[in-house]
Amino acid sequence: MAGDRPHEFELIKRFFAPLATDSGSLGLADDAAVFTPRPGYDLVLTKDMLAADVHFFAVDPPEAIARKALRVNLSDLAAKGARPRGYLLGLGLAVDWTVDWLERFCTGLKADQAAYGLVLWGGDTIKSGDRLQISVTAIGEVPQAKAVRRNGARAGDAIYVSGTIGDGAAGLKARLESGFAGRYGLIDEDLAHILDRYLLPRPRVELAGVLSDHAHAAMDVSDGLFADAKHIADASEVDLRIDLDLVPVSSALAKIRDASPEDFTGLLGGGDDYEILACVPETSTGAFDAAAGAAGCPVTRIGEVTRGSGKVELQRGGVAVQSLSGGFQHF
Amino acid sequence: MAGDRPHEFELIKRFFAPLATDSGSLGLADDAAVFTPRPGYDLVLTKDMLAADVHFFAVDPPEAIARKALRVNLSDLAAKGARPRGYLLGLGLAVDWTVDWLERFCTGLKADQAAYGLVLWGGDTIKSGDRLQISVTAIGEVPQAKAVRRNGARAGDAIYVSGTIGDGAAGLKARLESGFAGRYGLIDEDLAHILDRYLLPRPRVELAGVLSDHAHAAMDVSDGLFADAKHIADASEVDLRIDLDLVPVSSALAKIRDASPEDFTGLLGGGDDYEILACVPETSTGAFDAAAGAAGCPVTRIGEVTRGSGKVELQRGGVAVQSLSGGFQHF
Repeated sequence: MAGDRPHEFELIKRFFAPLATDSGSLGLADDAAVFTPRPGYDLVLTKDMLAADVHFFAVDPPEAIARKALRVNLSDLAAKGARPRGYLLGLGLAVDWTVDWLERFCTGLKADQAAYGLVLWGGDTIKSGDRLQISVTAIGEVPQAKAVRRNGARAGDAIYVSGTIGDGAAGLKARLESGFAGRYGLIDEDLAHILDRYLLPRPRVELAGVLSDHAHAAMDVSDGLFADAKHIADASEVDLRIDLDLVPVSSALAKIRDASPEDFTGLLGGGDDYEILACVPETSTGAFDAAAGAAGCPVTRIGEVTRGSGKVELQRGGVAVQSLSGGFQHF
Repeated sequence: MAGDRPHEFELIKRFFAPLATDSGSLGLADDAAVFTPRPGYDLVLTKDMLAADVHFFAVDPPEAIARKALRVNLSDLAAKGARPRGYLLGLGLAVDWTVDWLERFCTGLKADQAAYGLVLWGGDTIKSGDRLQISVTAIGEVPQAKAVRRNGARAGDAIYVSGTIGDGAAGLKARLESGFAGRYGLIDEDLAHILDRYLLPRPRVELAGVLSDHAHAAMDVSDGLFADAKHIADASEVDLRIDLDLVPVSSALAKIRDASPEDFTGLLGGGDDYEILACVPETSTGAFDAAAGAAGCPVTRIGEVTRGSGKVELQRGGVAVQSLSGGFQHF
């Protein structure tokens, strides 16, 4: 078995070089890649690591694992207003890795490189450890001084989220808990939807330019809507007031809400959404809505920024139902 | 025990934020770092992964592990003619990690950031797996179109190496084999020297500008002198002729040579040197020598590039003693 598995140089040639289509990558036949930045652009750099059975299931399709590892990084870039350009891939293969697995993993990378317009610049593969670890460094570009930060929200801003919230967390729960669908009366389509949203995030790359044009602050929702709202509140030294009734949800989540408001609120804050949470000045909300629509990205206004010092207030019908302050980390 | 260990946000604040001294890193209080490239410079990007008990010993001092993880990447940058600017750190902590270990690890990072003039831009930490894995993405800059590649060597070029070769491989052997020092008559100072060279590479950052000014091709010697010469021969479609008697060695290696020429040759090709192998046009050798001297980096001419198609010929006193061609990977 192990004898069938190629050496590192062979691995690079066979699996990774075809993904390094940029002239600066030189087909990975060098120690490093060379990239000429475009004048007038800043670079945005991010790194997310994923480990088997922590951030994905080891039994997931290798194509999906690869795409998720890339996409969680693209989601960070998009939230900063940056378009992806290239990435470096660190792969810590488990001792029982197979050629077939790696082939399918690279098929997933290739598909997403094409879908999102970025290339492999380099990386490293080691074979060790008891479980697969993936480390992606993604680099994007944004017009100079236009990167969107967490710390720019101001009192009076409108709070928006893209897409729907809670699906990823529901998908994870559905995989971990038998009888999940039946408990909330989910039909097959609902279940398929939430499982898919957990397996394969949809980074809002299309919203990058809209954010750098119009948003005061933004981040992607990965830790959970409330925890991430708290990050913005802390960094910007403001309060965020979110109306739970305004948070956009799928029909699957609506059914869970009707069956158990408590479980529903937990899922809203559960994370793994990879949607965008943005604070937009009131005077720009019209332009923001229009530009997001033109980019094909649904966005929904869910609250407002007020003077304060790092509190997130959750409301329902205008009434405060919970307040998150101090050392709050996860809902 | 586990209860004493801080959460991820606390980890960032306590250990990593003090290393992110660049304004673009925003103290790591954001999803991503922002970097404004200097006009007229290309970026060079590299990633090396290291795993405990594969690339270093788990029992090594944490400061040294951190510095080695950084330095093997800085060595790649230097070989391309690039000066380091920043890095992203992926840390896959083993389940039994301790706060004390991480504190010392970060002390090592801090020391080398100061020594080599780069900053932490971002990263990610996960806690999983049976052994520590470290993934560093380092980014440097080089004047536009001046990056030094593997594929630029031409017939007639002189071949140089920096420093001395074989010490790192000898240091590794000395740790693995009891009685190593006695076998070759090494004194305490010899042993300390080779052990140190294995533990802590000295990337030739000072040679970066000299290489981008004068070298046709370069790479760092990590796989081993002969394997890395083969990489240049293959990429440049030339032959490299190296005189083993000219390869510079420490007094420790000279003693090993006198005791066992065979063991000596094995160590010369053993890797872990993190010295520079460079091909310099004959007309520039004087300027290259002078510039390397001015930069405080010893360089030694060890051979020449000839017409060919990817062969490395090892000579001794002008006579070929071994030829490496075809699918050769490690000596």
